[in-house]
Amino acid sequence: MANKSRALAQRMLLLCRQETKAYSLWRRTTIPIACQGHLIKPSIMHLRFSLNVNKHSTCTTGSSSLSLRSHTCGELRPADVGDEVTLCGWVQYLRQDLFLIMRDFSGLAQILIPQDEAKLHLKTALCDLPPESVIKVKGTVRLRPDGQDNKEMATGEIEVLAESVEILNVCRKLPFEIKDFVKKSESLRMQYRYLDLRSSQMQYNLRLRSQLVMKMREYLCNVHGFVDVETPTLFKRTPGGAKEFVVPSREPGRFYSLPQSPQQFKQLLMVAGIDRYFQVARCYRDEGSKPDRQPEFTQVDIEMSFVDQAGIRGLIEGLVQYSWPVEKDPVSTPFPCMTYEKAMKDYGVDKPDTRFAMKLMDISKTFHNTEIEFLKDALNQPGGCIQAICVPDGAKHLKSKDHESLKQTARTQFGQEVSVVLVKADGALKSPLNRLMPASAKQQLLQMAQARPGDLLLISAGTQECVRPLLGKLRLQCAELLEGSGVAVRDPSAFHFLWVVDFPLFLPKEEDPDQLESAHHPFTAPLLEDTHLLYSQPHKVRGQHYDLVLNGCEVGGGSIRIHKASDQQHVLETILKEDPSLLSHLLEALDSGAPPHGGIALGLDRLLSIIVGAPSIRDVIAFPKSFRGHDLMSRAPDFVSEDELKTYYTSLSTGQQEAKGTRRNRHCCCCYTFVLKLRLDSYYRWIYIGEMQDDIVP
Amino acid sequence: MANKSRALAQRMLLLCRQETKAYSLWRRTTIPIACQGHLIKPSIMHLRFSLNVNKHSTCTTGSSSLSLRSHTCGELRPADVGDEVTLCGWVQYLRQDLFLIMRDFSGLAQILIPQDEAKLHLKTALCDLPPESVIKVKGTVRLRPDGQDNKEMATGEIEVLAESVEILNVCRKLPFEIKDFVKKSESLRMQYRYLDLRSSQMQYNLRLRSQLVMKMREYLCNVHGFVDVETPTLFKRTPGGAKEFVVPSREPGRFYSLPQSPQQFKQLLMVAGIDRYFQVARCYRDEGSKPDRQPEFTQVDIEMSFVDQAGIRGLIEGLVQYSWPVEKDPVSTPFPCMTYEKAMKDYGVDKPDTRFAMKLMDISKTFHNTEIEFLKDALNQPGGCIQAICVPDGAKHLKSKDHESLKQTARTQFGQEVSVVLVKADGALKSPLNRLMPASAKQQLLQMAQARPGDLLLISAGTQECVRPLLGKLRLQCAELLEGSGVAVRDPSAFHFLWVVDFPLFLPKEEDPDQLESAHHPFTAPLLEDTHLLYSQPHKVRGQHYDLVLNGCEVGGGSIRIHKASDQQHVLETILKEDPSLLSHLLEALDSGAPPHGGIALGLDRLLSIIVGAPSIRDVIAFPKSFRGHDLMSRAPDFVSEDELKTYYTSLSTGQQEAKGTRRNRHCCCCYTFVLKLRLDSYYRWIYIGEMQDDIVP
Repeated sequence: MANKSRALAQRMLLLCRQETKAYSLWRRTTIPIACQGHLIKPSIMHLRFSLNVNKHSTCTTGSSSLSLRSHTCGELRPADVGDEVTLCGWVQYLRQDLFLIMRDFSGLAQILIPQDEAKLHLKTALCDLPPESVIKVKGTVRLRPDGQDNKEMATGEIEVLAESVEILNVCRKLPFEIKDFVKKSESLRMQYRYLDLRSSQMQYNLRLRSQLVMKMREYLCNVHGFVDVETPTLFKRTPGGAKEFVVPSREPGRFYSLPQSPQQFKQLLMVAGIDRYFQVARCYRDEGSKPDRQPEFTQVDIEMSFVDQAGIRGLIEGLVQYSWPVEKDPVSTPFPCMTYEKAMKDYGVDKPDTRFAMKLMDISKTFHNTEIEFLKDALNQPGGCIQAICVPDGAKHLKSKDHESLKQTARTQFGQEVSVVLVKADGALKSPLNRLMPASAKQQLLQMAQARPGDLLLISAGTQECVRPLLGKLRLQCAELLEGSGVAVRDPSAFHFLWVVDFPLFLPKEEDPDQLESAHHPFTAPLLEDTHLLYSQPHKVRGQHYDLVLNGCEVGGGSIRIHKASDQQHVLETILKEDPSLLSHLLEALDSGAPPHGGIALGLDRLLSIIVGAPSIRDVIAFPKSFRGHDLMSRAPDFVSEDELKTYYTSLSTGQQEAKGTRRNRHCCCCYTFVLKLRLDSYYRWIYIGEMQDDIVP
Repeated sequence: MANKSRALAQRMLLLCRQETKAYSLWRRTTIPIACQGHLIKPSIMHLRFSLNVNKHSTCTTGSSSLSLRSHTCGELRPADVGDEVTLCGWVQYLRQDLFLIMRDFSGLAQILIPQDEAKLHLKTALCDLPPESVIKVKGTVRLRPDGQDNKEMATGEIEVLAESVEILNVCRKLPFEIKDFVKKSESLRMQYRYLDLRSSQMQYNLRLRSQLVMKMREYLCNVHGFVDVETPTLFKRTPGGAKEFVVPSREPGRFYSLPQSPQQFKQLLMVAGIDRYFQVARCYRDEGSKPDRQPEFTQVDIEMSFVDQAGIRGLIEGLVQYSWPVEKDPVSTPFPCMTYEKAMKDYGVDKPDTRFAMKLMDISKTFHNTEIEFLKDALNQPGGCIQAICVPDGAKHLKSKDHESLKQTARTQFGQEVSVVLVKADGALKSPLNRLMPASAKQQLLQMAQARPGDLLLISAGTQECVRPLLGKLRLQCAELLEGSGVAVRDPSAFHFLWVVDFPLFLPKEEDPDQLESAHHPFTAPLLEDTHLLYSQPHKVRGQHYDLVLNGCEVGGGSIRIHKASDQQHVLETILKEDPSLLSHLLEALDSGAPPHGGIALGLDRLLSIIVGAPSIRDVIAFPKSFRGHDLMSRAPDFVSEDELKTYYTSLSTGQQEAKGTRRNRHCCCCYTFVLKLRLDSYYRWIYIGEMQDDIVP
């Protein structure tokens, strides 16, 4: 066995050498400078004529296989000194007509431009070359002279003495420089996304995304026998699918719908006996303008038969661990698990950020006999309570404008008041409440809240349903405010995964609290011990749902599904008052031998944005849409003629024909700024007059 | 290092054993029969309560990891005899109240139902169980008694003596049996796709698809450093994109478009320096009713920078070889390569099926001095010729009704006549032409066509543009007719890959032959030696396009792209007369430092259907649409209310409101057969009255 593989390796090596030799011979025929001419050197013509024998550039693997280059810019090291290399890439900058810094995705390399008379044509060609032009350089790797090393640069010990240069494309003037330290507005980045993606951060983000997904696939397919199945995106509108894009068909009145997730299909695949399904699935959600959402997004969609909650959770823990970037600290499993009830009690939110404490505390007892009117009122109402969070060193670091912003949040987002209590260095309280509280109460308050001198307390009174989310929100705001003033609250390199379980299966409808709606979706199975309540007190039923939370963000959610048609029918018809005929195919499927099954979906964009520390999911998506759903580069969505719409038996609603006409005025599609069409160079460019309105962030 | 990994392995093993022990203890608490009750046994409740410690079912890898089963049905072998196993799956059938054949995706296993009094409850529960019900069986593997082996069954040497059984779901009566030999109409298969997918053929097709794509990803990502990048599907209508679905946005008059391919994005990614991109991309094409097309389909989309034709072709050859199913004969590389001109000359088509000969032959010379009027006329017109194909043993096997069907094809599809000439056993010709031809011409004809006694000649006269495609078509039809009468023409296990290159870059527009249109798309670069013709005689330019053909089907196509803005501008504006402002973002990108680049897209559905020998791409897609674009299972596309459309500022065209109303009449969505809604069992089912009209095949 060992012998056989050794022999194979030797044969491969020999083959590589032969081909490399042929290739370098072939490369030697390059005409040194073909500036402004056609990109591919004449020797390729020769190659083309011998197409039938299918000669390949090289036979090696890796980033430079089958390529016009021999190496990438960023990989050259002192070990390569003496080698003749061919690099292809972009002109980063020129220095003193002597050095050219060349870039490709892998990094930078310094090219030394020969200064002797015989090579003057090289110097002439390169010196006027605008940055970001594309070149091919053949040369020899050499060590930089003593003292000229650049420790900041991965290839800083070497340089390449150019022997020939080919200019593959000349770059015109760009709207911004491709340098990481040059700050650009996000709308400009989006408009010239193909330039923005050249930045090392975006290259890293997209490459990490690719690698992470590849590892996930290996884990699911190769380790656990999952089947990657593609499900349709031209589907049927689901009941209550108000957020679904519609796609007119060629039949009058009929529309496809772009699904928000492959939920129905993944369940049908379980009924079909696929056993283990996954898909990196494109999903669609038309929510208008919501911060940091995208009309199309990606989820890692997973479903298994004959599995329980623990099985799915174990799978996901393994998945995260397996695919976790090697350059980050490894994650440890199992992930901690918390009930919904506990999350709400301690953190005031169903996706707690457990990287820091500042938990909610019930301090009702302290005010049991209080004379303070608003606290007394709060305690007297049904479900009333007084709760607090203690912000360590909050009195020290938070300024009065911070106090105001916290109160503002409480007022505007929750219609509530919040009391700010500072604990002074001597342990005394500073607060309007101070005078109204007896000393014993103050003592008890400090004790219950475990507050020390220098801390700050935020106190809220009201119903539990109101107080918890309010303090949950203020807790996060305090963390941000503290971090803003330089206090380390959350470790930016820490990744705290958490399962949240035992969610309620149904919630009262906002518009009609007597009616119930699904907390997640109508296919979630109840907890076994709550099943009997489904037919008597459905509002008390907890579901077999689980959310995966990372650093306070929901990055995944799933459930064990109802797999019996009768239960599903009851939930849809009796509890949710939905028309079950809209899901007749699913009901019928459940009655055709459906196995018990469950699954999960991970939000890939969100997960990645947290891993790379990006402020927005837009930073891990190659071509994201703006806040208003526009592609600022291509100007989608765009106008379509009435004629084209006729195929689909649709037309613009009355009055919209006029709106359509504005295109003739060159009304900018994304920001209602007028633009002017000018003819520049040899093709059309659009020049925006005035500052472009940024519609990226809300 | 070796020690460290051995220690790790030992630890893993220990952990597995502990967990397995815990798990089998836990399994032993199963109540033997929980028929009709809730699926998950009470012991799971116990598991659920200990969720916080995250106990997993098992810690092993493979198809039964993290599952309620210990093994799959199809994997049991004599080596497992004596083991206690837990199987989960479907009841295939019962035999003599003694044997239960159980199925999962991996195969069948025979369960022996104990006959003793103490286990009577098992027998009672199982004997009335309808086929396709879902059960969990715990039992012990034993050898079948002598002589009871089943050689046809992979698990035919063993059986499982049941100790306990749990009925997880009872199946109602199904529209068809899940047995491979039961033939169903395709519309019935589509309507109950979740049942159809249980067949071993469909399980094989979908699993092979998953594995093939996984191997492709490994090759691209891990071997050649490609980056998997997802590109948007909500995009902007492209010039001439008449086949694009539109998606109304929430802005008056503005529509997204579902792209036919990520062509623009892949090129922009090259400009962005991604260097090597691939994506298993969902694409959309609204072509109405075309045979064996789908409104959404999948392509393996690839683009590389700094590469030439040979590089891309080498990459794809390696890709196919690497991902090729192990159970098929390996494919050898490099693939043969043929110019477009040669393909048309020899095979009359640009995607020749090279599994058999029957090449086109020019026999004009034979009739140089002919007196036969229609042949003389043909030769006298510009570009006129007489060509033939020789069908070996065609005179022997093809009947006169076959001759008629060949003539019919010529007439209806090409408006041409074709002459059928039989070569009799004695070498004499049988044909209306026979009397009109001098003996020398007959001799020459037989010689030129290399025809032997028993062969059949098809002769066509006219312009080359007309004769070649006609004979190309008849060549394929002859192969089918011969195969229909039992002659082996094409080896069904043979896979003939072929590159076709040197296509014309432009073709005359059908509606206006003075105008040119792109043969493939406007981004294809010309051959270097033809570049100068771009500005003088564009109709003579050949493109750097390459098609990958497999067994006479196009399974891929790509090109080296134009990477200079000025060339692209010239092609769009001067040659194609398109408005270049519609592609201004791409033109601008090419002028911002675009590297030379090229790529290819493989049609995954088509490739797979050929590999598995399926008659249609629908057989390698989990949930395909019917010929008319319907999902027969969910009845998509469906009606959407005017109210819902208002969000998108669209409305149904005049008169369509009425059409919409037909839903109230329960008009069947897919076949214009009236349907009746009945309440059956405990939920709604639709019963179709009469035979359902099959709209699957044209």
